[in-house]
Amino acid sequence: MIQRRLVLILSVFAAAGLGLSADEGMWTFDNVPRALIKQKYAFDITDQWLDRVRLASVRVGNGGSGSFVSPDGLLFTNQHVGRGQVSKLSTAEKNLVRDGFYAATRDEELRCPDLELNVLVSYEDVTGRVQGAVKPGSSDKEAADQRRAEMAVIEKACATATGLKCEVITLYSGGEYWLYRNKKYTDVRLVFAPEEQIAYFGGDYDNFTYPRWNFDITFFRAYENGVPAKTEHHLTWSANGAAEGELVFVPGYPGSTARLLTVAQLEYHRDLGNPLQKQVWTLRAEALARYAKLGAEQDRRSSSGRLGLSNSLKRLVGQQDGLSNPRIFKKKEDDEAALRTRIAANPEWQKAYAPAFDQVAAAYAELPKYAKRLAFSNLTASGLAGMASTFVRLADEWPKPSAQRLPEFADARLEGLRFSLQSTAPIYLDLEEAQLTAWLDDVRSALGQDDPFVTAALGGQTPATLVKVVFAATKLHDVATRKALYEGGAAAIKASDDPLIALARRVEPVIRELRTWQETHVQSVETAAGTKIAQARFAVYGKTAYPDANFNLRLEYGTVLGYEEDTTLVPYKTTFHGLYERAAAFSEKPPFNLPARWRDGKSKLDLSIPYNFVYTADTIGGNSGSPVINRAGEICGINFDSNLQKLPNRYLFIDDAEGSRAVGVHSAGIIEGLAKLYGAEALVKELTGK
Amino acid sequence: MIQRRLVLILSVFAAAGLGLSADEGMWTFDNVPRALIKQKYAFDITDQWLDRVRLASVRVGNGGSGSFVSPDGLLFTNQHVGRGQVSKLSTAEKNLVRDGFYAATRDEELRCPDLELNVLVSYEDVTGRVQGAVKPGSSDKEAADQRRAEMAVIEKACATATGLKCEVITLYSGGEYWLYRNKKYTDVRLVFAPEEQIAYFGGDYDNFTYPRWNFDITFFRAYENGVPAKTEHHLTWSANGAAEGELVFVPGYPGSTARLLTVAQLEYHRDLGNPLQKQVWTLRAEALARYAKLGAEQDRRSSSGRLGLSNSLKRLVGQQDGLSNPRIFKKKEDDEAALRTRIAANPEWQKAYAPAFDQVAAAYAELPKYAKRLAFSNLTASGLAGMASTFVRLADEWPKPSAQRLPEFADARLEGLRFSLQSTAPIYLDLEEAQLTAWLDDVRSALGQDDPFVTAALGGQTPATLVKVVFAATKLHDVATRKALYEGGAAAIKASDDPLIALARRVEPVIRELRTWQETHVQSVETAAGTKIAQARFAVYGKTAYPDANFNLRLEYGTVLGYEEDTTLVPYKTTFHGLYERAAAFSEKPPFNLPARWRDGKSKLDLSIPYNFVYTADTIGGNSGSPVINRAGEICGINFDSNLQKLPNRYLFIDDAEGSRAVGVHSAGIIEGLAKLYGAEALVKELTGK
Repeated sequence: MIQRRLVLILSVFAAAGLGLSADEGMWTFDNVPRALIKQKYAFDITDQWLDRVRLASVRVGNGGSGSFVSPDGLLFTNQHVGRGQVSKLSTAEKNLVRDGFYAATRDEELRCPDLELNVLVSYEDVTGRVQGAVKPGSSDKEAADQRRAEMAVIEKACATATGLKCEVITLYSGGEYWLYRNKKYTDVRLVFAPEEQIAYFGGDYDNFTYPRWNFDITFFRAYENGVPAKTEHHLTWSANGAAEGELVFVPGYPGSTARLLTVAQLEYHRDLGNPLQKQVWTLRAEALARYAKLGAEQDRRSSSGRLGLSNSLKRLVGQQDGLSNPRIFKKKEDDEAALRTRIAANPEWQKAYAPAFDQVAAAYAELPKYAKRLAFSNLTASGLAGMASTFVRLADEWPKPSAQRLPEFADARLEGLRFSLQSTAPIYLDLEEAQLTAWLDDVRSALGQDDPFVTAALGGQTPATLVKVVFAATKLHDVATRKALYEGGAAAIKASDDPLIALARRVEPVIRELRTWQETHVQSVETAAGTKIAQARFAVYGKTAYPDANFNLRLEYGTVLGYEEDTTLVPYKTTFHGLYERAAAFSEKPPFNLPARWRDGKSKLDLSIPYNFVYTADTIGGNSGSPVINRAGEICGINFDSNLQKLPNRYLFIDDAEGSRAVGVHSAGIIEGLAKLYGAEALVKELTGK
Repeated sequence: MIQRRLVLILSVFAAAGLGLSADEGMWTFDNVPRALIKQKYAFDITDQWLDRVRLASVRVGNGGSGSFVSPDGLLFTNQHVGRGQVSKLSTAEKNLVRDGFYAATRDEELRCPDLELNVLVSYEDVTGRVQGAVKPGSSDKEAADQRRAEMAVIEKACATATGLKCEVITLYSGGEYWLYRNKKYTDVRLVFAPEEQIAYFGGDYDNFTYPRWNFDITFFRAYENGVPAKTEHHLTWSANGAAEGELVFVPGYPGSTARLLTVAQLEYHRDLGNPLQKQVWTLRAEALARYAKLGAEQDRRSSSGRLGLSNSLKRLVGQQDGLSNPRIFKKKEDDEAALRTRIAANPEWQKAYAPAFDQVAAAYAELPKYAKRLAFSNLTASGLAGMASTFVRLADEWPKPSAQRLPEFADARLEGLRFSLQSTAPIYLDLEEAQLTAWLDDVRSALGQDDPFVTAALGGQTPATLVKVVFAATKLHDVATRKALYEGGAAAIKASDDPLIALARRVEPVIRELRTWQETHVQSVETAAGTKIAQARFAVYGKTAYPDANFNLRLEYGTVLGYEEDTTLVPYKTTFHGLYERAAAFSEKPPFNLPARWRDGKSKLDLSIPYNFVYTADTIGGNSGSPVINRAGEICGINFDSNLQKLPNRYLFIDDAEGSRAVGVHSAGIIEGLAKLYGAEALVKELTGK
């Protein structure tokens, strides 16, 4: 458990169920609280301002944020967002994650094997069309299928008409549906990455803490047609960065909040969902740790995976600590009770919305029976085995009309799927084999010998024996094999006798059955009920709230501000002085060691320049790499973390007064480091013009 | 409230009532746990080692520690221990507290007006004599008087025979009595003091926190017969200071623990004693704050008093937080229950010891009736009025035989009393007047118009009117007046018509009556019962425990060691880098500003040198200024504070594993600062020989 005091300050607003206090909210661009910001900060947000910020904001891969920072496609994000690509560009001989990388000229930039960038170029409310597709008298499952079919139709029509990547996204638990049109970049090249040790200085110990001293930045460049993309809409560099007290904005792609869930749903996550997730991630982390111990090269190969899991685990523990805190849970109960009281006061609302809470509760009451099987019945612990499952599923779905497929296989999504399945990123068979063996061992322990998934996977063999044979013969790690499978379509996949495909084929009926059960008995019920509850909230409070985060574009805002902790003050910024103090205090023992460039280059730096800093914006995982910008839309820094106080904010907003803060690298420190330590003159000139 | 998590780790030892775990204990030099230290640290503490350390350890004034660090009387302590003297040596024109002081030659050293040093040269167990003086059949009060008389006799005989300052001290709540023979120095001169802003960098915010960056050191020199004292027994300077993991010792004069109190006593302190103390100190602090706002000179005159009170208040709040923590209190209850169970198992013990607990409880049940009057019925808020009270009391006591006087007026104590009453330290009448006026206002509010003390003091006038008249005419601030009064003896004091003496004379009967009530109904009972309980502890556990601290010499030990806080590591040391970072992060706004010497001198320092550090020794207030020494008895640093985790240790030992740490200035940082910033070459040479 992350042992950290959390004092709840129950604002009148929050207690009244309005849920808005301090600098709260992950706002969609159609519903930015302009009046509130104008009132509090005397700043008018114009449409032009919003458009410019939106068009410069980039979704990086599937779980990160970034921004364009030059007219020539230069993209700015975190090292820990770009780490996966940097790792894929590395080899045993040339470890770019460890040693860093800088392309002084464009010719030296390295093309990433499978990085996709997306920019939200336009959006449209399609709630009426999606909801209108549901035929009267449909069951929840039928309604879900009808909505999904309509969404696929909308996406395909959009893609055909615009050539853009079109996605219909669900907001407010089904209260709204929006068509998002994205411009996509798939030729993305690495420009700069620091040594991981300085990006992640302090390692897992310091992760999610503050004060911090991390150079967690990376630059890529988007290309189109073999030349740098023209990114007219980009952010410029602030001359001085942000001062304490200054208003800042954080546009980006926050990942996943659960603030609108009902108490029944939260109870499930608290008592079973989160503990199961923790168990799964812990087992995977342990497997990778064992593999990493085999040698330096194994350590390198597994490092991205290990860091990702330790980050996820620490965040999950912090979130679960919040949810397990009786005072926090009481607040969620009070919020729901207040909403239900308001609903009950209006007979029409009562009739329309009140049953939804019980329906969700009833559905979630069934979930524990299947939860463990749902968590363990998959092959995704190995990326390659996960690809095999995707191929098998694709073969089942492809022959259906697009609108009837599982949503991730709808026509509008196939191009992205092809891109990922044909990635040229290196695949280390020994690592995949170790992961899959360990996972099947763990699944067998968790579910038992006679579990349908275990039986289907192992057929009586031990995981080690089975996986060894499979990996001795599979060719799936070969890009050409995967390309042929994809291009051969469903028939080719079905005809494949690759042993990894065969394994995936054996377990697929079990996975499919569990998924169907969950979609029918839980997901469709919670979507239907969630829609009702969202409508109830709109009816009671108006559209004054923001939807739960779901990896789509949002705008957050806040103040650059230190805070109180225990009896003293935590400053809003750190400097390079502190980096050298912390390294020295631990005698530079890992994870407090310095790359040689930083250790030897100390005298080149102005040590009193701002390095990391904190602000009150309501960020969460997925906001990693978000630019931190001022009123002029200039870059003051880059978001890379939150402090521990903030972690429970998956479930509710944690007030600024509790010391909840987002953590960024300061723009001044970035330029100082790039210029003085990396000699990255061309990059600095492209950013600042100087 | 100081909001800080405290996780109690109940060690098996502690739960069993043995009270010994980790690096626990403030040990008298006759009972150092040598076997335990040898077992844990493989270090043999010899008699010679103990003698050398004891004879180099110095009690500084009434509430601090220090050590001799050269053969020529050089004394090393904290700035905040020496601050009072430095303040007394300052004037409006020459503010040594603010600006610091360094005497490059002995001629420049400044003689302190009233600083007394004591060194414990020998000690002897006199428990038999003191307890033997109690006649069978005596009441608790009679027994207390008989013991006190015997103690006075022992002290006087010792003083006569040795010429030393002799004190009989009470240990283990009356379980033991020891005669301590002290060598006293009263000609003490200031050698070095830093600017207060660097000694107390971070002010009240950072006080009792860690990491820290404070240059909290001061040097004095003891003189005898007008020349530097020959201090053969002194400590030498360590070449490198302490490394992490190293065993260190902290000899010194810890002030006041209450670990052996019964649950009934602790309940009283928790529910009434501590809140009353907090009220009194808060009122005094508020009065000083109002005075300080009148101008820069008033700010200077009151600064020592204000800092002392804010330090006391923050410590008290931390202690009270611990006592109010149900888990901590439960531990105290469990400890007492375990002891009582052991006592009950032996019929002889049960008869002899068991009633003591109820007797204490019964006495403390009476205390709340008088507690408020006891806390408020005094004039000590003004030092000068306090002196008046002392004179009046002295006049009453002096005519009695020494053994029958109040203990502080026994013959053996008169020389110390004379020294303090004839101090040449400046007395600021406006400050004294402001303090006394505010205090009498506060007393009247707290006790009411008709309270005997209030009536006696004010006689119907307002505090402002009365005090104004008193201070217009008093001559007590004049040293010659006080000298004449003292030398004139009881008759001269009784004949004095000084209005401040007259005021003290009016309230003295009320104070005396309250004191007598407390001594009769509470103090003598708790001493008698405390003796029984101490004897019970010896019977049950053996003499494996240390007595509560009482400003007499103790030895503490521990390990230089960082700790865990939240999810990360707090390093065992800080460096100068961090000082400059913290100052810069707050834009050098007070209390994070730097003296010009430090701001401008940054480039002269090796910023990576250790500055402050932490260790596990069981210190408490009074250990301020204690040397931190290694096995060789060399100075590795100087103790100046504890972190917040440690504060509840007034009431019980807080395990090292909870992050409880003592905080010191590192020996390497001291030399670096003295040499590079202060040009204190002579001082550095005297310390290090280089």
